[in-house]
Amino acid sequence: MQTADIRQPGSRNVLFIMCDQLRPDYLSCYGGVLQTPNIDRIAARGLRFDRAFVTSGVCGPSRTSFYTGRYPISHRVTWNRVPLPLDELTLGDYLAEAGRPLHLLGKTHFVPDAARLRRLRPDPEQRRLLDEGGFTPVERYDGHFEPAADSPYRRYLIDQGYKGPTPWTDYVIGSTGADGQFASGWYMRNAPLAARVAAADSETAYLTSRAIGFIEQQGDTPWALHLSYIKPHWPYKAPAPYHTLYGAADAPRPVRADHERVDPHPVFGAYQRLEESECFAQDHVVDAIRPVYMGLVKQIDDELGRLLDRLEQLGRLDDTLIVFTSDHGDLAGDHWLGEKEYFFEPVMRIPLIVSDPSAAARASRGTASEAMVECIDVVPTVLDFLGLPSQEHRVEGRSLLPLLRGGQPGEWRSQVFGHLDYAYREARTFLGRGPQECNGFMVRGERYKYIWWEGYRSQLFDLQEDPQELHDLGTDPGLEPVRRAMREDLLRWLASSRRRTTESSQQVLERTHAHERMMGILIGRW
Amino acid sequence: MQTADIRQPGSRNVLFIMCDQLRPDYLSCYGGVLQTPNIDRIAARGLRFDRAFVTSGVCGPSRTSFYTGRYPISHRVTWNRVPLPLDELTLGDYLAEAGRPLHLLGKTHFVPDAARLRRLRPDPEQRRLLDEGGFTPVERYDGHFEPAADSPYRRYLIDQGYKGPTPWTDYVIGSTGADGQFASGWYMRNAPLAARVAAADSETAYLTSRAIGFIEQQGDTPWALHLSYIKPHWPYKAPAPYHTLYGAADAPRPVRADHERVDPHPVFGAYQRLEESECFAQDHVVDAIRPVYMGLVKQIDDELGRLLDRLEQLGRLDDTLIVFTSDHGDLAGDHWLGEKEYFFEPVMRIPLIVSDPSAAARASRGTASEAMVECIDVVPTVLDFLGLPSQEHRVEGRSLLPLLRGGQPGEWRSQVFGHLDYAYREARTFLGRGPQECNGFMVRGERYKYIWWEGYRSQLFDLQEDPQELHDLGTDPGLEPVRRAMREDLLRWLASSRRRTTESSQQVLERTHAHERMMGILIGRW
Repeated sequence: MQTADIRQPGSRNVLFIMCDQLRPDYLSCYGGVLQTPNIDRIAARGLRFDRAFVTSGVCGPSRTSFYTGRYPISHRVTWNRVPLPLDELTLGDYLAEAGRPLHLLGKTHFVPDAARLRRLRPDPEQRRLLDEGGFTPVERYDGHFEPAADSPYRRYLIDQGYKGPTPWTDYVIGSTGADGQFASGWYMRNAPLAARVAAADSETAYLTSRAIGFIEQQGDTPWALHLSYIKPHWPYKAPAPYHTLYGAADAPRPVRADHERVDPHPVFGAYQRLEESECFAQDHVVDAIRPVYMGLVKQIDDELGRLLDRLEQLGRLDDTLIVFTSDHGDLAGDHWLGEKEYFFEPVMRIPLIVSDPSAAARASRGTASEAMVECIDVVPTVLDFLGLPSQEHRVEGRSLLPLLRGGQPGEWRSQVFGHLDYAYREARTFLGRGPQECNGFMVRGERYKYIWWEGYRSQLFDLQEDPQELHDLGTDPGLEPVRRAMREDLLRWLASSRRRTTESSQQVLERTHAHERMMGILIGRW
Repeated sequence: MQTADIRQPGSRNVLFIMCDQLRPDYLSCYGGVLQTPNIDRIAARGLRFDRAFVTSGVCGPSRTSFYTGRYPISHRVTWNRVPLPLDELTLGDYLAEAGRPLHLLGKTHFVPDAARLRRLRPDPEQRRLLDEGGFTPVERYDGHFEPAADSPYRRYLIDQGYKGPTPWTDYVIGSTGADGQFASGWYMRNAPLAARVAAADSETAYLTSRAIGFIEQQGDTPWALHLSYIKPHWPYKAPAPYHTLYGAADAPRPVRADHERVDPHPVFGAYQRLEESECFAQDHVVDAIRPVYMGLVKQIDDELGRLLDRLEQLGRLDDTLIVFTSDHGDLAGDHWLGEKEYFFEPVMRIPLIVSDPSAAARASRGTASEAMVECIDVVPTVLDFLGLPSQEHRVEGRSLLPLLRGGQPGEWRSQVFGHLDYAYREARTFLGRGPQECNGFMVRGERYKYIWWEGYRSQLFDLQEDPQELHDLGTDPGLEPVRRAMREDLLRWLASSRRRTTESSQQVLERTHAHERMMGILIGRW
């Protein structure tokens, strides 16, 4: 395998920044409600993708798509904490093969296939990579739990004077209520209270500081870093002053209509019955949570300012590819749902900004692209940037560099595809289904979004006439031709996924031309 | 994992016999042209499946389906010698996990993912299993090549006095022509000449003798053996007297019509241009090859007689599950094609006979079943017979034991599915396609066979009105509703393949019920 020409000026380093559960329409560069001048700085240096989508509205599958460049039906991590099959390779594996580690600070949600690994007992160095999905952790920190006793972040908290056996629970997501009693961030009613941790010691600030430290340490050595924030994901809990920057009046109102609750599609109906949905269906919950969510986004923007300043001082803005994105969006009451997962635009559409330091990308800086792009495009973009093989027999995404550098990318996709496997959700038990029959697929084209459900009728939304997706046209008889055509598209997509991953396209070409004959085998010769 | 109760009388041993390229309609128990009394003996003791199909008309993918219980789109070995992805498990792996090796005599066509294994460097014992697809070889012998220098069969041939550096080439597939010169079996014109090897030393007899020896050696120890014959696969070359038992007049005439060559479907047309197709399009080639093919089948039947006699003497017929089948059929001139691969019935339909020694199967002995069964049903049948876990999160086939034992199998399938990835074939270059866009899928229902092609129109055959598949109804406007319905079936099938293989269904069930809450995480609680 070829090695990247690390001496090439302008294409040395990779900074892949991911937020968790960040909707694009809160960011000022996306025309959103918040002022996010630092994310805007990245956009000013790069190309902003206005139609970027994840392959799944669930953290684990979406991240695995980001990391493998493959759709969930291909990498097969269809839910959180499903172990990655041992034959799948990630961006970290590709970079490691080229002699360059992909460092990690923050969350991956990755789980190795421990059962298979226990039997195989591979080489320890490989095992280390396999255990971390190909990443080389500076510090892996998945969040949402009290960190392990030997976790650097936990030691940091203790060193900073946050006392007790559970500093994350007590301070990072803990608050003091009006009655002076401890108020846990796990309960959303406590979300508006300030975290007991100082902003400078919170998860977002801590990971940023570690990233700055890492980059400083590298000096002139080329590096690749995945900086993966935990926020603005739940527990919705912000440190001062971010907890109180915004009020309910500053937040967008939830997008929902009463008729969505009347005889909804069965799967949509089951999702409405989930605890977080019933909770977010109440206005006072929306009013409590959305301002905190906004504060958490604002904090990320402030911290990114610190990071960008340091990159600039070090000259790293001139030789670093920056990818800024999120693993999915957030509903927070839209369509009477909490959280994410379902195929609505606020879940599937993500911010994606790519800043390429190369001179060739100059013309696209500060502009926006309407191209339909997907999270699986990040892996091929990074491989392309570093001059590494495209792995096209595995990778299902496409490099975005031609879009950034003004080249002709050839015919671009006009549809994106999503998958939901709700087997692990109580929605499944509400519907009385077995764990192997809970698949839904989304085909999102220019105008229509088509959703195919295993065992149920399809859904259809006309994004032109109904951009808020309030009117399910799945049973509109006049639109059967649209649904049928999109079912054909879905069939074509399912039929053509990259399955033959253990041989490269080059190997196929070499074996096509009378390979058997070269080996002395004659088939069908008289 | 539970271990089989090996003391249970009547369910101790497994004999899984596979032929290569054997059509059912040459066997007398299938109403065919040959007298095959010994295969009929298996049928008399078992249940004969009259509608059994492979998932692919290509050796490698079909065998991998037989061995994994999964469709080619799931196991992803879409062509011969494509390495099996490392996360796939085979019947051998399942039996090994239960402490029982699956012994192998003959062909598997299996190739390990050497590139990945080189990096992982797994435990040597696991490596041995991985290198052989989970099998424990008594002797692996894939045929169609001069065996390696240390191969037992090659040593056997030399010991028997077959001299020279290439005894297989010179004797097993070699003949002496009318002119006294050597005549290679690689050229079909030489097929009618007797092999220079004695029948008793030929591949079929040798593997049978080794199987008898293996079974004798086991004594009362339970065993599982895959006896995998090379024949009647090409090179079409039979030893005396089998080379001359039949003449052209004894053989069925090729099923083909002139109109099939006029403006055929593009992929069908490309297959007609392959060298073996152009060769078999000539009557004199059919007349030369089919009698030899019949002789090779007859020899298998005779050898099976020897094997069955010995099993009977040892009492093994009373405690052994026997599966008799083939990896696919053969065209030999039908539809102007040679060999196999294309989705016609003579390729996709196979003999499948299952003889279950259990008392519960008594009523079904000697009967036939019209159930639509697939080669992926063998793995779950064997697991069921041995009382091992069903692996239903991986295995896509169904146990046939309920059909054998008169139980209620529940709703049975009414369609079978096939796949062809012709990327490795010159047909691809004739059509000017890339190596990642050569997929075809077959949906074969009770009446219709529907074939979906990537990039081309579909094909349709009405098996009721046109059982010989001579009339492609792919463009018949009146049948668009049929094609549309079968496309929907194909979509459903593609959407629901077993992808989430690193977690069992039981694990999914355990994680569905508020798993996060058990871990202290509260999602969406006020």
